[in-house]
Amino acid sequence: MSAPNTRIGLVLFPRLTQLDLTGPVEVFGRMPEVEIVLLWKTLEPVPSDRGMCILPTCTFEDCESLDVICVPGGPGQVQLMEDEDTLHFLRRIAPTCKFVTSVCTGSLVLGAAGLLSGYRATSHWSSIDQLSLLGAEPVSERVVRDRNRITGAGVTSGIDFALTVVAELAGADVSQEIQLQMEYDPEPPYQAGSPRSAPPAIVTSTREKLASFIARRREVTERAAKRLANM
Amino acid sequence: MSAPNTRIGLVLFPRLTQLDLTGPVEVFGRMPEVEIVLLWKTLEPVPSDRGMCILPTCTFEDCESLDVICVPGGPGQVQLMEDEDTLHFLRRIAPTCKFVTSVCTGSLVLGAAGLLSGYRATSHWSSIDQLSLLGAEPVSERVVRDRNRITGAGVTSGIDFALTVVAELAGADVSQEIQLQMEYDPEPPYQAGSPRSAPPAIVTSTREKLASFIARRREVTERAAKRLANM
Repeated sequence: MSAPNTRIGLVLFPRLTQLDLTGPVEVFGRMPEVEIVLLWKTLEPVPSDRGMCILPTCTFEDCESLDVICVPGGPGQVQLMEDEDTLHFLRRIAPTCKFVTSVCTGSLVLGAAGLLSGYRATSHWSSIDQLSLLGAEPVSERVVRDRNRITGAGVTSGIDFALTVVAELAGADVSQEIQLQMEYDPEPPYQAGSPRSAPPAIVTSTREKLASFIARRREVTERAAKRLANM
Repeated sequence: MSAPNTRIGLVLFPRLTQLDLTGPVEVFGRMPEVEIVLLWKTLEPVPSDRGMCILPTCTFEDCESLDVICVPGGPGQVQLMEDEDTLHFLRRIAPTCKFVTSVCTGSLVLGAAGLLSGYRATSHWSSIDQLSLLGAEPVSERVVRDRNRITGAGVTSGIDFALTVVAELAGADVSQEIQLQMEYDPEPPYQAGSPRSAPPAIVTSTREKLASFIARRREVTERAAKRLANM
């Protein structure tokens, strides 16, 4: 068997939002000659924010280089922003990559590692403003590319994001074949997918439910910003 | 802790297409008072068609009743259509459920279990015609409901499908809040998500790559149809 042409690593951390990772994994895994690597500190099963457990395939320590690194988001991202093993790994692996990427609040982790300073980037709508604390320029678009940084917005954006990355790596035809294989012809049942389009009452109730968690996330982002300033 | 109001089970079988399951799991898991059960014969890690391993949470044997059963699709569905343990489980659990559901070619498994005879249903665009061999009426829509059967089309349809099921179980407001949480405001980079919209050359090349597998699937569907006729 010949070695794969493209090696894509995704960080699989406790309490991630699993669709931030599984959406892109489904897209990336359909590229020809690709190897997908699910990275964590150990090879024990990792529980997502709502309990589903996925197995890592490689430890940080055993990963020497990648073509793409991708950091998904989810509640556990708050702990990850202060996790030295993860930040160290991201700083070590990023220079080996063609693309340094994230989905959802994974961009805040890239930012905490100092990898988005001076870059345009996106994140989940609830927390995109926090990017500016980490030296990035927040851009409210679904997929944002600035040089070799490609970031996706919240959760389901990971599918649009990954099709964009595949087009960069393997061309538009391959990306379109994957879109057709995955029957990605979305028909959301409601107009409720962004604060711009959702009914105001739905936006208000969702913001209220998230408020205390977003405030906690902000405290951690502020601490990460201080550490970056002292580096 | 109070018992959950809603118990949703998804069949987690070897060589499934993981996004057929992980998309709906992400949506369902955000319902209030819900329990998600990932069902297989054992609790060992189950590998998807492209290798990602997920842990089941409950065996068929230990599952007595559910509010919703959902069968995802993927290449392993071909083996599943002739797997007596699975077909027996589906026939036993379906009468306990408010909704009997599938994503992608999971509908062919429901059909092989005799659970779609006389129902309108959908499946992945490549294989939807095979539903008629199993007594169902194929409908080329993204989400199809007929009485208490709700079926989704290929892979990414599982997200639209699951938001539809949540609206049935918990109301439109809950479904819209989940859509907003997941920032499900899709912007596919190409018009290539269905054979109706994709460039003809992309449709042709994708069909050619799938042809031998689809033929093998058809042989198994034909055998399943014969067994159904003799029941």
